[in-house]
Amino acid sequence: MTTRQPRLEIEYCTQCRWLLRAGWTAQELLTTFTVELGEVALIPGTGGVFDVRLDGETVWSRAEQGGFPDLAELKRAVRDRVAPGRDLGHTDRRRPS
Amino acid sequence: MTTRQPRLEIEYCTQCRWLLRAGWTAQELLTTFTVELGEVALIPGTGGVFDVRLDGETVWSRAEQGGFPDLAELKRAVRDRVAPGRDLGHTDRRRPS
Repeated sequence: MTTRQPRLEIEYCTQCRWLLRAGWTAQELLTTFTVELGEVALIPGTGGVFDVRLDGETVWSRAEQGGFPDLAELKRAVRDRVAPGRDLGHTDRRRPS
Repeated sequence: MTTRQPRLEIEYCTQCRWLLRAGWTAQELLTTFTVELGEVALIPGTGGVFDVRLDGETVWSRAEQGGFPDLAELKRAVRDRVAPGRDLGHTDRRRPS
């Protein structure tokens, strides 16, 4: 089966009912990276999985990191891989410490 | 790149801003076919495209059929391919003619 690159995958646990979370994340990434992503695949999984992969490489894994990815952080991680020179606007501005 | 089968693709025109429509369709299909679909891929396209494909085979194409797919009709078409014996409840009940 032919896929488009870069291919971003979001694998989510159906038992945990994380489809809406996965769907929201997919749409946020496609809104930000309108032309930079070849496709975003939503993959039903089980056992508490919530993983984000880009061309097979893990960008975020619930099993390793716990909880859910912060969206701004996830966008920066995806940007660094697919559009390294791109300014993400307020997503790049961290709160003053 | 490894994909999961059955793979459903939704290719949508970004210029027409059909991401939300594509995202909604993806989530509706994944809600109905929780375990029957291997993945649903959202594919940004151009030029007024809104196509739904299952394992490479066209299920619905805006270029051929015009407008957008009726969701119940689309679910029946997907069901016929991935879970032919399955009753879709009210989605299978047509309005009296």
